[in-house]
Amino acid sequence: MRKVPDSTVRRLAIYLHFLEEFEASGAATVSSQALARRGGTTAAQVRKDLSFFGSFGKRGLGYAVPELAGRLRLILGLDRRYRVAVVGAGRVGSALAQYAGFPARGFDIVAVFDRDPAKIGQPLDGGRVRDASTIEQVVRSEQIEIGIVVTPAAAAQEVTDRLVAGGVRAILNFAPAPLVVPSRVELRNVNLALELETLSYALAHR
Amino acid sequence: MRKVPDSTVRRLAIYLHFLEEFEASGAATVSSQALARRGGTTAAQVRKDLSFFGSFGKRGLGYAVPELAGRLRLILGLDRRYRVAVVGAGRVGSALAQYAGFPARGFDIVAVFDRDPAKIGQPLDGGRVRDASTIEQVVRSEQIEIGIVVTPAAAAQEVTDRLVAGGVRAILNFAPAPLVVPSRVELRNVNLALELETLSYALAHR
Repeated sequence: MRKVPDSTVRRLAIYLHFLEEFEASGAATVSSQALARRGGTTAAQVRKDLSFFGSFGKRGLGYAVPELAGRLRLILGLDRRYRVAVVGAGRVGSALAQYAGFPARGFDIVAVFDRDPAKIGQPLDGGRVRDASTIEQVVRSEQIEIGIVVTPAAAAQEVTDRLVAGGVRAILNFAPAPLVVPSRVELRNVNLALELETLSYALAHR
Repeated sequence: MRKVPDSTVRRLAIYLHFLEEFEASGAATVSSQALARRGGTTAAQVRKDLSFFGSFGKRGLGYAVPELAGRLRLILGLDRRYRVAVVGAGRVGSALAQYAGFPARGFDIVAVFDRDPAKIGQPLDGGRVRDASTIEQVVRSEQIEIGIVVTPAAAAQEVTDRLVAGGVRAILNFAPAPLVVPSRVELRNVNLALELETLSYALAHR
């Protein structure tokens, strides 16, 4: 398969969100124009994004909503659930641990860790904050595949190493630190301030 | 000026973070290779990203760290502070309202709104949650330029309209809803679940 750009993968996930809204509203078909409008892109881009994965829809008839949604779920690996750990039970970590949008998309937060004795044992949705020294063992016993790192920068690499040692296959990093992981582990960095910084760029250049 | 791709703007913000770390550690110069390594890209991409904004550095000598950091701050509009409002004092909204990474980058959260009487008046860092019905008036009197929307989907457009009516110039949208704003207002959408969905894509295709 051709290498699929990250930007295409992001748009496919966005198309899926819209398709699920169309599905909920009972729409049977959708045009590439309608998908493009919702996704802030062009109909040609929608067709190109989908073309990486085969042929979809019929010229002039658009896409069958439930079929396309189902195929996108499969393409995006969203046809199953994932077991996820959050490391760092500060404000952002606790919010993420209890963020309803994650289980709604198939990502179940099954463990939350912190190293602060004042936080360990505190209740959070569906469990209690666990001691960060047990990360490796819990990741293994709970068969956790994805780790979300929300610690201060200084602790981020150490907890990442423990998540990796326990066997996670992917890391989502909110900590303001560059992380090193083995090539078998997928890594995505999220920087909340960065979103505001791209906005300030736009404001400065209007 | 040539149209600068969003991906370039994001990388410039990442380079600035690294330059500030280099600055803090006392480094005087940095090569495009070193910047590329930290930013997960190539030296050629670093040079191309910077070339949108003129000429930087000297061949063989690299970039002067404080000078490049200063110019990137100017380019990104980070040579000044911004007054920001958060609408929605749920878990994620409260975490964002108190997120130390925002003021550290020049974004001061000066107001937080909610429409839930149980939340209005509750203390948050540097203030209290205000009644969402006062958004327009507070945005105007507090000269707020950026609004962060963290409400449920159903309320997102209404609070956005109030932020826009009050005079914000930019919206950062965390709500799972497509927003409509006038063309004079910058809009960025952040979807926390989307980050996990691009990870699940990668897991499904290994």
